[in-house]
Amino acid sequence: MKKEINIGLLGTGTVGGGVILVLKDHEALITERVGTPIRIKKVLARHPEKVHALDPSLPVVTDIEEITGDPDIDIVVELIGREHPALEYMKKALLAGKNVVTANKDVVAVHGKELFELAAAHHVDFLFEASVAGGIPIIRPLKESLASNRISLIMGIINGTTNYMLTRMTEEHMDFTEVLKQAQEKGYAESDPTADIGGFDAARKIAILSSIAFNTRVHLDEVEIEGIEKISLRDIVYAEELGYTIKLLGIAKQLKNGKISVGVHPTMLRKNHPLASVDDVFNAVYIEGQPIGEAMFYGRGAGRFPTASAVCGDIIECARNIREGCNGRVGCTCYEEKALALKEEVFSQFYVRLLVDEAPGVLAQIASVFGKHEVSLFNVLQTRKLGDLAEIVVITHPVSVYDLEEATKELAVTKVVNRISNVLRVEDDQSIC
Amino acid sequence: MKKEINIGLLGTGTVGGGVILVLKDHEALITERVGTPIRIKKVLARHPEKVHALDPSLPVVTDIEEITGDPDIDIVVELIGREHPALEYMKKALLAGKNVVTANKDVVAVHGKELFELAAAHHVDFLFEASVAGGIPIIRPLKESLASNRISLIMGIINGTTNYMLTRMTEEHMDFTEVLKQAQEKGYAESDPTADIGGFDAARKIAILSSIAFNTRVHLDEVEIEGIEKISLRDIVYAEELGYTIKLLGIAKQLKNGKISVGVHPTMLRKNHPLASVDDVFNAVYIEGQPIGEAMFYGRGAGRFPTASAVCGDIIECARNIREGCNGRVGCTCYEEKALALKEEVFSQFYVRLLVDEAPGVLAQIASVFGKHEVSLFNVLQTRKLGDLAEIVVITHPVSVYDLEEATKELAVTKVVNRISNVLRVEDDQSIC
Repeated sequence: MKKEINIGLLGTGTVGGGVILVLKDHEALITERVGTPIRIKKVLARHPEKVHALDPSLPVVTDIEEITGDPDIDIVVELIGREHPALEYMKKALLAGKNVVTANKDVVAVHGKELFELAAAHHVDFLFEASVAGGIPIIRPLKESLASNRISLIMGIINGTTNYMLTRMTEEHMDFTEVLKQAQEKGYAESDPTADIGGFDAARKIAILSSIAFNTRVHLDEVEIEGIEKISLRDIVYAEELGYTIKLLGIAKQLKNGKISVGVHPTMLRKNHPLASVDDVFNAVYIEGQPIGEAMFYGRGAGRFPTASAVCGDIIECARNIREGCNGRVGCTCYEEKALALKEEVFSQFYVRLLVDEAPGVLAQIASVFGKHEVSLFNVLQTRKLGDLAEIVVITHPVSVYDLEEATKELAVTKVVNRISNVLRVEDDQSIC
Repeated sequence: MKKEINIGLLGTGTVGGGVILVLKDHEALITERVGTPIRIKKVLARHPEKVHALDPSLPVVTDIEEITGDPDIDIVVELIGREHPALEYMKKALLAGKNVVTANKDVVAVHGKELFELAAAHHVDFLFEASVAGGIPIIRPLKESLASNRISLIMGIINGTTNYMLTRMTEEHMDFTEVLKQAQEKGYAESDPTADIGGFDAARKIAILSSIAFNTRVHLDEVEIEGIEKISLRDIVYAEELGYTIKLLGIAKQLKNGKISVGVHPTMLRKNHPLASVDDVFNAVYIEGQPIGEAMFYGRGAGRFPTASAVCGDIIECARNIREGCNGRVGCTCYEEKALALKEEVFSQFYVRLLVDEAPGVLAQIASVFGKHEVSLFNVLQTRKLGDLAEIVVITHPVSVYDLEEATKELAVTKVVNRISNVLRVEDDQSIC
C-alpha cells in the first residue's frame, strides 16, 4: 500500500487556491477518512508568490513535464479552466498513466469522449464532479446511486448568475439592464456576461448531465439554447399573476421512444415545484426517473470553497481507488448513440405574449389560429391596454414544439397581431414528456 | 472477470418485490452500465407464490443456509426488516464472505459496528443507502462526495408520515387526531403509529446520518427524542403568523469544540429555509459544512420503487467493486469517539407558548424570569384571550438548552403562569450552532 498519495496541481486561481486550503486545513480529517495522507507534491503556476501566500511549503513548477513526468505523482488536478492548454495537459497526464480530476466544463463538454477513452486505456480515473453545479454532488450520484434508473427528465438551475438576476427581477421588480448592472457590481456577472445570460454556460452543463443520465454523448451543437435577454419585467409580472416563477433551466428529456431532447430555456415553473424556491446564486438539479420517482440536489453552484469541496471529493475517490488498486472503476457510461427527438415529438406547455388590435373578434381570431395548429389553450389573460392595442397572454396545454412554432409563425403574419412579444416554455404539473 | 453477479435476496415484501421488478425491467440497462449481468439466483421467502407472481423464474428457498452456503452467491440483499432474524442472517452472510446490501435502519442503527467489523474482516461491502430517506442518495454522498467536509449541521425531514401530517395540519388546519385518522386511512400511518409520530423512526435515521457525518458512533439512547403529539393546531397557526412552518426534524450538530448533539424535534423553520417547502410524504436532508457551505438532498423517503432505487444503486456499487476486486473500498468511517455536548453548550432559538393571568404587569414578570436565566426575547406575541387568561407566545434569541429549561422550570411555578402550553425549537437565520 502506498504511504501517501501525491497530487500535481495545475492552476491556482479561485478554485485551485481553495483546494490548497482545504487539503491543508482538513489534512487530519481527510487522512483518517482515506487511510492514507494526500499531499500536493507540485503546483504548476506562473506566480509562485500567489501559491506561497496560501502555503509557503508548496513547490512551484512552470513546466507541465515536471508533473506528468514525475513517477511519484498519482493524481493530476486540472483547475486552469478554459479549453487550452487544459485539454493538452490532461491528455498528457492520462497518457502518462496519471489519474485526472478536473472542474473544467468546457473541456468535458467538448472533449469528454477522447479523455474518457484515454483514461480507460490507461486504467485510471477521470473525474469531473466540479464541472457541473459547483459543490453539489450530482455527477457521481447519477453514475452510481441512481445507476438502476431510467432517467426521463433532468431540469437544472445550473447557472448562478442568471438565477441571481431572475430572483432580483422577481423580488424587486428591477428590469433586466438594471439587474445586470447590479450583478456585475457584486461580482456575480462578468464584464462580458454573454456566456451566462446567453445560456451557453448552462448548455455545457446540461450537455454533460444528459450525456451521463442518458448514456449517450450529447454534443454542444445539439443543445437548443435560449438566454434570459428575452425576459422582460412584464413577463415576470405575468408569471406571478399566473402562479409561476421564471427560471433559466437546462432541460433534458428522454422520450418513451428512446430519443432525447436537450436545451436551455427560460421557463415558467409552477410555484410549488421544488426548483421554484431555489433563489439567488443557488443551483439545483431536479430529476425524474424510474424507479426513484423525483429527486433534487441543491447547493452552491460556484465559489472557491463549494467547488473545492467537489474537487476534493473526487481526489478522495481517486485516492481510495489507488489504495485498493481499482482506478477506472466507474468509467465512461456513454455506450449508446441516442437520436435527437424531432420537434413533432417534443411536448411542452408554452406562454405566448401578444400585442393585438383592440377590436371585437380579435381574441376569437387568435384562438382560431392556435386551434388550426392543434394548440389548445389552458389559460388566457387579456389585461393591459397600450393605446389602441391590447396585450393578450396565453398559456397552452402541452403541445408539440412543431405545432407551437407553426402557430406562432402564422400569428406573426396575422393582420390583427401587432407583435409576438415573447414565447416561453412552461413546466407545470400538466406537462408531459 | 466473473460472467455474472449473483444475488441471494432475503425478503419479498414491498421493497423486495420492488427490487425483483427493477432488476428484471431494467436488466439490459443495468448490464450495460455495470459491464456484467446481475441476476437474482435465490430468494428466501415463506410464500413462493408471491415471488412467482412477480417473476415465475425465480428459485425460492426457505433455509438461509441455502443462500449463505452457496459459493456462487456474491451479494446477499436483506429486505426482511426489523431486528431479528435480519441481524443474524446478515452476520451469517458476512461470515461466509458475502457482500451485504440492506435497507434495515433498525439493525444498522443498533448493530452497525458489529456488522462493519465483520465486513472489514472479510473484505466485503456492507451497504445501506436505503436505510435512510428511501430513494434519496445521502449515505454515499456523505461518505464519498462530501468526504473533504467538516460537517457542522444536519437537519433532515426523514419521516414521511409525520411530514404528511404536519403538512395537512398547516394547509387545511386539521387538528392532530383528525389528520392521524386521515393518514391511517391513506396508508401513510400504521395502525400503531408510535414509531413515526413519537419520533423513534426518525431517531434511528439521524443516528445513522450523524454517525457517518461526524465519524463517530451515535447510539440510539444518545438521541434526544420529541414526537409530534405535542403539536396542536394552535402552534401551527402561531407559526404561520410568525413566518415559520413546523417540521419534525432530525437535527445533528457538531460544535466547534468537537462535541456533538443529536436529536429529533418538532421545529419551527423560517419559511424561506430550503426544508420549509418540503411537503407531504417527501423527505429531504439539509447539511452545512466546510468547504461546501449548504447542500440539500430531496426526494421520496419511502415506497416500493424509490427504496428499490437505493437498494439497486448499492447492488450496482457492489457489483462494480466485485468486477474490480475492491470490495470493502469504503468501509466504516466511525473512527472517533465524540462526546455528547452538555445542555450548557447547545444553543437554539425557542418558541414558548404560555397561558397567563390577564392582569397588568404580567408580561413584565414573565420577561424578568426569562431575563434572570439569560434568555433574551426575539419576538413576543400576546394575542388571544381565553376567559380570564391570556395567551403569550415568545420566540427567544439563541440561548443554551440549559438556560431555557431553567427558565421554563421557574415559569412553571410562577404564580401568574397558568400553564406552559408548549416549547419548541426554532431554526432561524439567527440560529447559531
